[in-house]
Amino acid sequence: VSASATDEGNRVVVIGAGFAGLATMRALTGSGADVTLVDRNVYSTFQPLLYQVATGGLNPGDVAYSVRGFVRKRHGRFRHGTVANIDTAGRTVALADGGTLDYDYLVLATGVTVNYFGIPGAAEHTRALYTRAEAIALRDELMGALERVASGRGRDDLTVVIVGGGATGVEMAGTVAELRTAGLAAAFPEINPARVRVLLVEQGPELLSPFHPRLRSYALRQLLDRHVDVRLNTAIRKVTSDSVVLDDGETVHSDLTVWAAGVAAPAGLKAWGLPQREGGRIAVGHDLRVDGQPRIFAAGDIARIDDQPLPQLAQPALQAGQHVAQQIKRLMDGQPTIGFRYHDKGSMATIGRGAAVVELSNGAIRFTGVSAWLTWLGLHIVTLLGGRNRISALVNLGWRYLAWPSGSGVIVGDVTE
Amino acid sequence: VSASATDEGNRVVVIGAGFAGLATMRALTGSGADVTLVDRNVYSTFQPLLYQVATGGLNPGDVAYSVRGFVRKRHGRFRHGTVANIDTAGRTVALADGGTLDYDYLVLATGVTVNYFGIPGAAEHTRALYTRAEAIALRDELMGALERVASGRGRDDLTVVIVGGGATGVEMAGTVAELRTAGLAAAFPEINPARVRVLLVEQGPELLSPFHPRLRSYALRQLLDRHVDVRLNTAIRKVTSDSVVLDDGETVHSDLTVWAAGVAAPAGLKAWGLPQREGGRIAVGHDLRVDGQPRIFAAGDIARIDDQPLPQLAQPALQAGQHVAQQIKRLMDGQPTIGFRYHDKGSMATIGRGAAVVELSNGAIRFTGVSAWLTWLGLHIVTLLGGRNRISALVNLGWRYLAWPSGSGVIVGDVTE
Repeated sequence: VSASATDEGNRVVVIGAGFAGLATMRALTGSGADVTLVDRNVYSTFQPLLYQVATGGLNPGDVAYSVRGFVRKRHGRFRHGTVANIDTAGRTVALADGGTLDYDYLVLATGVTVNYFGIPGAAEHTRALYTRAEAIALRDELMGALERVASGRGRDDLTVVIVGGGATGVEMAGTVAELRTAGLAAAFPEINPARVRVLLVEQGPELLSPFHPRLRSYALRQLLDRHVDVRLNTAIRKVTSDSVVLDDGETVHSDLTVWAAGVAAPAGLKAWGLPQREGGRIAVGHDLRVDGQPRIFAAGDIARIDDQPLPQLAQPALQAGQHVAQQIKRLMDGQPTIGFRYHDKGSMATIGRGAAVVELSNGAIRFTGVSAWLTWLGLHIVTLLGGRNRISALVNLGWRYLAWPSGSGVIVGDVTE
Repeated sequence: VSASATDEGNRVVVIGAGFAGLATMRALTGSGADVTLVDRNVYSTFQPLLYQVATGGLNPGDVAYSVRGFVRKRHGRFRHGTVANIDTAGRTVALADGGTLDYDYLVLATGVTVNYFGIPGAAEHTRALYTRAEAIALRDELMGALERVASGRGRDDLTVVIVGGGATGVEMAGTVAELRTAGLAAAFPEINPARVRVLLVEQGPELLSPFHPRLRSYALRQLLDRHVDVRLNTAIRKVTSDSVVLDDGETVHSDLTVWAAGVAAPAGLKAWGLPQREGGRIAVGHDLRVDGQPRIFAAGDIARIDDQPLPQLAQPALQAGQHVAQQIKRLMDGQPTIGFRYHDKGSMATIGRGAAVVELSNGAIRFTGVSAWLTWLGLHIVTLLGGRNRISALVNLGWRYLAWPSGSGVIVGDVTE
């Protein structure tokens, strides 16, 4: 690095190795920027398939990628750690382990975590599905509960309650329901599928609210076909270790409650002293710069443009990450930033084997059923970063959906009692 | 079950879902025996490939199989639990959770665990490689140590000491050494391979002592080629959190010590009140019945015939499990038992890519190198029980050995600091 390059300010620090952070780094490759990627894990997680890990369909290793391997190809640096504080005046990021990183441009792409909305017992008695570790814990608890029913000791039934009717909740509910009908016969032949109950609770009047009404009703029908007890317009009042209390006063027994609702900033983010909007998300302008911070950008789920809410999906995060990289290049070249425009390439959600909903090109193309499901399968496999994971996930998902009827097992770990 | 069948005594309880226990159950299918398989895990582990999990080459799910799925195909029962006690007079197995199982024939196939030979610090400061959980812990610690070196914080070198020059020790040492030369460039480009040191310590004068001298010297040469520091005729005096003290007084710094030596019965086995031989292994006669117990058999690593020691490998365990099943059928038919004869189909060990040793047909056929390695790869894939795991392991191992030079990553989890 020559002195002049440093004077121009080419040090970029990216916090978070999710879709947005990796897209930023990828788009900065070869730009002359000196990029350091920071993450609390040494791997990047492919979040859209975590529910497959949680239901024993994929290995944790199928949806995780070495960050160092990625960074190496982009000629950047990786720093394993968590951010403790940001000194915006001194342009320094302080890490929890005492290290510091100087930056000329800072990109915040931490992602978000679950929001319990202050509902009593939710944080203590539910499981979330944002991280690899959470997905493994959920899988081990689900398999432990099935093992308990199969053993004939303790309760002879199992109720799984899923809170939140967005993509994660719908995919999780559909997969658990299908595990019951197709998977139990092979892995837990002792269990009467009728003794396993799946509830999906959604506060609003619709599942998958960002989708077209036709797709929403298709998803609902598919879940009902799989005997999911769907409760719309139903809020949660309280969660205990073995129940969920609904807002109409009904107490539903629950052996395992999955929290797939709400979005909140990571706990430590408040200490960074940046402007926040609802749910603690970072306030950014149209160019994705943090309000009042000309050298700090935010992208992905953690960023919130005031009048332009973006769906919390991979595509907006990838596009925002690319946009941030372009703005940093512009600033390094002495040009002004320009505004971000999200190109809606479409969205999709899967309910089970042969059942998914797909919306492409701003809703101009919509379809459901087997073709949608194959589109989902194909795009998720293609989008998976690494070659090994692509093949491995294809094998495991193919096995799951093709071999279930003839009786294949699930991926199991040490079950939770 | 008719009254007469019960009177004849057809209840078989098999403790342990390893090679021997599964072979017993498989061979009893259709015999009229009422078989219950007991294991502390809900999965069976393919132990010969655990070192691949420990080095990030395979997913834990690639070497684990749902026991219930297996048991279902054999029309038996599965009981998740651990044995607390055996009442030989009352023919009852007491489980740790308070349950009991009545038996007419009992098969003990628990496998063995590590033996520290009372060496100070060994139990506290080393990692073993007998279980899936141990392999994951070892992987996360190894990757954490590599991450520490790559980060440039703390010590800038890493020493892995492997104790025991049997198949597990040789395979582990070879794979860590190859991870250093071939894998580091991709996953941890910051690490100078010369700063990663691998030591293999063996008390005896030879590695792989059951093999022919030509194969032993091949294995040694392959490890030396991979820059493994092999110490033969070297015993361990003491282990600390960051060192291994050798019997000549030398203290070797060690960041990670792997204990791949010695065989001992599981801790709780002594309480069962059965006759034991060296290492706590259960004393059995030539028909594999426990001394003095006409209705109790032992098979696999846990069984010890007085004058006929068997190698601790998959083949002897599989054959012993089959033999036990045959003897139970003979006893159920009112026939006397017959003695077990081990048919040595051969043994093999792998050092790294394109390097293995294979001995077939009682040593009549011996070969090394690429052909041996392909034989090892083929037989391990074929021997893997489940169809999904067979393909998944083939993909992952194929990827590891074909893509390493061009730079593939490793399977990572939450690293241990």
